[in-house]
Amino acid sequence: MTLDDARALDEADPLAPFLDEFDRRGDRIYLDGNSLGVPPRATAARVAAVIHREWAGSLIGGWNDHDWIGAPARVGARIAGIIGAHEDEVVVTDSTSVNLFKLTVATVRALPDRSELVAEAGNFPTDLHVARTAAELTGRRLVVAEPGGLTAAIGPDTGVAVLAHVHYKTGARHDMAALTTHAEAHGAPILWDLSHSVGAVPLDLTGCRVSMAVGCGYKYLNGGPGAPAFLHVAREWQARLHSPISGWFGHADPFAFGDEWAAAPGVERFLAGTPPVLSMAALEVGVDLMARVDPAALWAKAVALWELFVRRVGEVAPELALITPRDADARGSHASFRHPHAHEIVAALIERGVVGDFRAPDVARFGITPLTLTYEEVWRAAEMVGEVMASEVWREPRFEVRARVT
Amino acid sequence: MTLDDARALDEADPLAPFLDEFDRRGDRIYLDGNSLGVPPRATAARVAAVIHREWAGSLIGGWNDHDWIGAPARVGARIAGIIGAHEDEVVVTDSTSVNLFKLTVATVRALPDRSELVAEAGNFPTDLHVARTAAELTGRRLVVAEPGGLTAAIGPDTGVAVLAHVHYKTGARHDMAALTTHAEAHGAPILWDLSHSVGAVPLDLTGCRVSMAVGCGYKYLNGGPGAPAFLHVAREWQARLHSPISGWFGHADPFAFGDEWAAAPGVERFLAGTPPVLSMAALEVGVDLMARVDPAALWAKAVALWELFVRRVGEVAPELALITPRDADARGSHASFRHPHAHEIVAALIERGVVGDFRAPDVARFGITPLTLTYEEVWRAAEMVGEVMASEVWREPRFEVRARVT
Repeated sequence: MTLDDARALDEADPLAPFLDEFDRRGDRIYLDGNSLGVPPRATAARVAAVIHREWAGSLIGGWNDHDWIGAPARVGARIAGIIGAHEDEVVVTDSTSVNLFKLTVATVRALPDRSELVAEAGNFPTDLHVARTAAELTGRRLVVAEPGGLTAAIGPDTGVAVLAHVHYKTGARHDMAALTTHAEAHGAPILWDLSHSVGAVPLDLTGCRVSMAVGCGYKYLNGGPGAPAFLHVAREWQARLHSPISGWFGHADPFAFGDEWAAAPGVERFLAGTPPVLSMAALEVGVDLMARVDPAALWAKAVALWELFVRRVGEVAPELALITPRDADARGSHASFRHPHAHEIVAALIERGVVGDFRAPDVARFGITPLTLTYEEVWRAAEMVGEVMASEVWREPRFEVRARVT
Repeated sequence: MTLDDARALDEADPLAPFLDEFDRRGDRIYLDGNSLGVPPRATAARVAAVIHREWAGSLIGGWNDHDWIGAPARVGARIAGIIGAHEDEVVVTDSTSVNLFKLTVATVRALPDRSELVAEAGNFPTDLHVARTAAELTGRRLVVAEPGGLTAAIGPDTGVAVLAHVHYKTGARHDMAALTTHAEAHGAPILWDLSHSVGAVPLDLTGCRVSMAVGCGYKYLNGGPGAPAFLHVAREWQARLHSPISGWFGHADPFAFGDEWAAAPGVERFLAGTPPVLSMAALEVGVDLMARVDPAALWAKAVALWELFVRRVGEVAPELALITPRDADARGSHASFRHPHAHEIVAALIERGVVGDFRAPDVARFGITPLTLTYEEVWRAAEMVGEVMASEVWREPRFEVRARVT
């Protein structure tokens, strides 16, 4: 693979027209879109219109005139299309953490005879932390399963298993269909955290018979920093689950203002407070853009970019140890490498305009986001990894300084 | 009071310079700023800068470069100044509903010997609904107190009492100092919901020895539709309370990504997921503006506008029955009237450019927001109430049609 080869792939790229839909700037190669996506060009104008035309123009009337009230279900339905769910199974609301909490508690309370709640060791810690307090609150035993022990941990006592589909650090992807089927055989639902898979890998929640899921809007969906999260509940579970946070937006008739609680009939019962309209508008732009993309083409480009990057890094920097599975079906859309000086290497790369990120204690992580990256950029990024490793510039003491957020 | 009198008051108004800081449009008189505030003029440019300069410009680096990470505590400290609390006692996070849930559950769990949770009948229903599920989850008995029975309901068995400071419908204001002192004598904390008082009435949480509170950003703080909410925990309570939703932003070291939970030392332990940066930025503009206002001048103008409006409505529309206490110390900053056809009257007023709102079943509610209203506008609004009532235009059948949100 040469630079000319990479350019030829860009010439033939069916997704190339999407590149111009993002505010991509030429000063860096951004391989951290799996942490925070790139802004769509349309976002700024959309949010400005919400402020000038909708908020200033309609004031309180905006809830009706501009259907702010419908945004959680409207954007949710669009996300449903992206994850292979039914339109009435998804709403946008709160953060991933809060949604994990609501669904975990609701599910174990719907299965009062089951004494255990299963979470994973070593995956994104919020999932485990939230499961722990949910277990405390509901009087369940928390079973923390090691990666190899998940199947054994899920059994007839499981009230819910909280699993992250794609591992935030290694990129390893669980077999959603197989695990869901295994859990279902024991009558146990899995709550899937799709934060590192939505907009990245092919998803078919209905086909996999998934009961419930949550996910994040600010990574591959390009919804903006801290974009609202989403929540999925399969139709057959909706009437059985009750949110522990009974805020007015989850009420069947929020504007009746009665003292009696009545949950909204569908997945909207998991809404809580008033949704943040400006952040929702930004998310909607990102989601609408992703909804226009052919998922097969997206994944094909993701795989091609990933292979290009990993193969070339393997040639120019063999001392970086790949920890992400090579098999495309067994991983998400980022590539992670282990090195004792991963932090300094990532810092040196960022200084040279190649933005990946560091995950403690020793992982350099590079996100592959096909809508916002060219083959040429990924090729250049791999070359820069080689230069940085060969020059040993990362040994300079200044790269040891650690910022709070990386 | 004549139109000329009102204009003279506007000429002498020390808060008049603030009027130009808002995107006020001449096509209506807006008496619903207690439901959704008016956009500050600076908001659109600020949010555009966050998108263009911070998000597109810094991408993931925005968390450090532009201190997105510090926004919950930074904006919280500014709100602390507005409510008379210490800067390290307030964070901005989640919605009011979610914050009510977190603090209610945390407080009763910190007082394991207390068997009851007190909530109010007939106030904003979310507070009651959230208290009900919190009581279920924590195995406490929910005591729903009628307005006159609050003092009797709060006693030695009370784990927490959830009270809305200003009543969303009637505008009646609880005596925060007296109730807090009464509860404290029984060792019972009150969780105050300040949604209808922050930015409206004088608040001195430290002086009143308040233990904890929540409040909303989209009403008098002008933070935008669905703006993030805030949460207050007095210093002496912070180490004792543990959020039931242990999301990563509440961790002492979120970026260590360890499996063990360690709560952040102060009020930041009540953060949960990643904060919505765009909505936070809009809220910050509104809060910064409010923080510049002299609270005594704000309340003096609020009282003067309220008196003007209520007195004139009493003259021109005596059939509207005021249900808000006349004593300024016993009420918030809105005026509510009962009438069997309140819905149709509000609809007819909106058609004529006077925007109040309807609260079921029979209340017309008018918010007095001194930063965004002139004396002349309030005078004209009262005259329009008189015209609508005298003409009986509200009897036309089309005004019976009810929108979902009013």
